Amino acid sequence: MNQDNFYQPDCILCQLVKGQLPSKKVVETDEFLAIHDKYPRARIDVLIIDKKHRVKKDTVFGRYKGDGYWDKVFEAVSLVIKKMGLDKAGYKIVILGAGLNHFEHEHIHVMSGD
Amino acid sequence: MNQDNFYQPDCILCQLVKGQLPSKKVVETDEFLAIHDKYPRARIDVLIIDKKHRVKKDTVFGRYKGDGYWDKVFEAVSLVIKKMGLDKAGYKIVILGAGLNHFEHEHIHVMSGD
Repeated sequence: MNQDNFYQPDCILCQLVKGQLPSKKVVETDEFLAIHDKYPRARIDVLIIDKKHRVKKDTVFGRYKGDGYWDKVFEAVSLVIKKMGLDKAGYKIVILGAGLNHFEHEHIHVMSGD
Repeated sequence: MNQDNFYQPDCILCQLVKGQLPSKKVVETDEFLAIHDKYPRARIDVLIIDKKHRVKKDTVFGRYKGDGYWDKVFEAVSLVIKKMGLDKAGYKIVILGAGLNHFEHEHIHVMSGD
């Protein structure tokens, strides 16, 4: 796949990754950017966004699901949990898909509190 | 680590894996067993249980988080989603920890419906 395909100019998550939309960064890794969700569904709701436009059907069912992809996701998840102190306060990792998600571009919620 | 440490006789999830408690199996892989949650928090609530007693601090933060561990989790997750038709109906993957979970033994919920 051409590297350019990993950026979709009409995708809000791509725009957040590129800094074309403002966001509050929590932490980042080579592959993922974690920001505070602008529309939190809990007291803490951090959105971990794949820096590349990989869509959920490919990350959960398709060509990206192996090769350590989900290990890299959880590396970012663990950094977010520690940075936010949720290893003590409690954490809820939520991944929505197949219509329950707002964006096809892979993203993971790390939440805490009601 | 001695293989025997992966089974804790007082752990309900270990007992489910060993068949010492009854359960309704959805699917299994070499490393994970997926069963219907006895106390579902949604119309569909499938519990994916690590067949070994790996605890959350080790799977999310510690010595098991690499080496493809989470890729293997999501292999089981994708099998459950497909088996239950949630690739069409929608899915919500939920992983609780640091006190929000009932069991330290790693387990993942795949849910759908209210």
